[in-house]
Amino acid sequence: MAPQREAPVLLDLTIDNITPNTNRINAQCDDPRLRYLMSRLVTHLHDFARETRLSTDEWMAALNFLVGCGQISSDVRHEFILLSDILGLSLLIDSINHPKPPLSTEGSVLGPFHTHDAPVMPSGGDMSSDPEGEPLLCICTVKDTHGKPIQGVQIDIWETDSSGHYDVQHEGRDEKGPSERCVMESDANGRFWFKGIKPVSYPIPHDGPVGKLLERLGRHCWRPAHLHFMFRKEGLDNLITALYLRGDPYETSDAVFGVKKSLVIHLDKVDKATAEQYDAKEGAWLLKHDFVLVTQEDADRLRDQNATKALEKLGLRMKLVDHLPIPDVD
Amino acid sequence: MAPQREAPVLLDLTIDNITPNTNRINAQCDDPRLRYLMSRLVTHLHDFARETRLSTDEWMAALNFLVGCGQISSDVRHEFILLSDILGLSLLIDSINHPKPPLSTEGSVLGPFHTHDAPVMPSGGDMSSDPEGEPLLCICTVKDTHGKPIQGVQIDIWETDSSGHYDVQHEGRDEKGPSERCVMESDANGRFWFKGIKPVSYPIPHDGPVGKLLERLGRHCWRPAHLHFMFRKEGLDNLITALYLRGDPYETSDAVFGVKKSLVIHLDKVDKATAEQYDAKEGAWLLKHDFVLVTQEDADRLRDQNATKALEKLGLRMKLVDHLPIPDVD
Repeated sequence: MAPQREAPVLLDLTIDNITPNTNRINAQCDDPRLRYLMSRLVTHLHDFARETRLSTDEWMAALNFLVGCGQISSDVRHEFILLSDILGLSLLIDSINHPKPPLSTEGSVLGPFHTHDAPVMPSGGDMSSDPEGEPLLCICTVKDTHGKPIQGVQIDIWETDSSGHYDVQHEGRDEKGPSERCVMESDANGRFWFKGIKPVSYPIPHDGPVGKLLERLGRHCWRPAHLHFMFRKEGLDNLITALYLRGDPYETSDAVFGVKKSLVIHLDKVDKATAEQYDAKEGAWLLKHDFVLVTQEDADRLRDQNATKALEKLGLRMKLVDHLPIPDVD
Repeated sequence: MAPQREAPVLLDLTIDNITPNTNRINAQCDDPRLRYLMSRLVTHLHDFARETRLSTDEWMAALNFLVGCGQISSDVRHEFILLSDILGLSLLIDSINHPKPPLSTEGSVLGPFHTHDAPVMPSGGDMSSDPEGEPLLCICTVKDTHGKPIQGVQIDIWETDSSGHYDVQHEGRDEKGPSERCVMESDANGRFWFKGIKPVSYPIPHDGPVGKLLERLGRHCWRPAHLHFMFRKEGLDNLITALYLRGDPYETSDAVFGVKKSLVIHLDKVDKATAEQYDAKEGAWLLKHDFVLVTQEDADRLRDQNATKALEKLGLRMKLVDHLPIPDVD
């Protein structure tokens, strides 16, 4: 549909004509991508209300729920990411935007606890200050899809303490500073290694609106034990992922849908030779993992292919601009 | 679909299987209405992301927009009602829930400025304390669809001051108390009359996220001059409506889609006889209007009929419980 610059006459709007009229007035927007997003958003929102005959009380409860999500959010808590997580949207967005060719490391949900203030740490450092945690040594590599080590990848790593809380969930975090999180860089052999603690399963924050929703849905709020990783380097597609401990009671019922079989790993124990080589405690937990990253170019190509195929299947006549679809009006 | 109590195995979720799996785990919910609402919400949300191939940046911008809406909201400002208003959702919800048989007064949007602390005022009172406003005398009746006056209807009335702001938009409102709003009751002849000021067109609050969205959409943020009314009485369907002044520059482009032709009225001038009868100023503006209310029973019946028809047209097999559809699983 060509952008319509002439404003529609907005009078006597009804259940049936409100949607085209809202879309017509939004079609005054100059940005074709925003125009498309708004037209799909309004259509879905209105269809939802029509299909459910949403009552005034339900509508108001929903709007108040959204206010509550905004008001409990802060610099260190994002209730809307949490909401997106438990509705499966976050997993979907990651899957759309970071398609993985065979043999590359799969993605997982970012979650609401990544921060931008984690300390840079050389390989061998210990990112945990929790004496209650069970020591864990992680020895990892980053390679490309041809098996070639990648140097200079920036890796954000974060996990909870032994009580199942991220540092930002504790009072006084401003004074104490970050803990159980760090930023590392892969060396010439694509390697990085660090000390942390064995991850534990934990409930997502459930003292807010999202927790109450889960309760009303009869769902638990637990995530299986995991370590978060984020990989970034110019020319590579960002990889946001996590490694999950095999045998966790929530392995197949993650509240935020993040677990993939290829990301479920087994912990070993550090033997004497490894302990000496890495200055670690013999008998501590050992995690060894090879991450495989995709180039930006390959990811873009795959994403474009997937988008084109999916949109054709939906019968939509679209073109991709900056890898994002907008209606093809030619 | 019968409620599924057995939790699905949530592993290896993808663009294609995340939706049925999210719906399956939400199907553990005991409440059939909430189950239905969630299943339609999740489906529309995911379809929206798939159709638009929503980017990670767009997703995060949307989540931050929602946080912003929550954080600017307060006891006297509800940014999510405003958002619902400018997306046409509020008008749609009102149309679904308060269908109007022929000859009854049509509804309009509630807006975010109704409060619950307006003073009760006897007929003849003046609800405005704004010396800059042009005096207005309103003489109204409330009748049923057979033309019979209705006594004892509670009527909330609210409007802006002459600067186009509701009392709650001014600093110090807590100390000064309500202004340009009141609650009245219809007398034995269904009448109520009051003094206010001539409404003016005004911009909806545009210093927040919703205002910025309107700007990006190339839309103005103005509402045509109007007076809000809400009618309530046991046994009657609540009527939320507004009267709009004919000839307002925004008459056909209301930012929140509220105008209906039947609600656009003409102002007269108070003549000498009327001035004496109502203790009003000769030459002041005069608004005369007869409101026609629908019984709860008639409204319920009409709403159920509309719902049944609409759901059949959508090919959905539903039953109505408490006038709200849920899947018919028999």
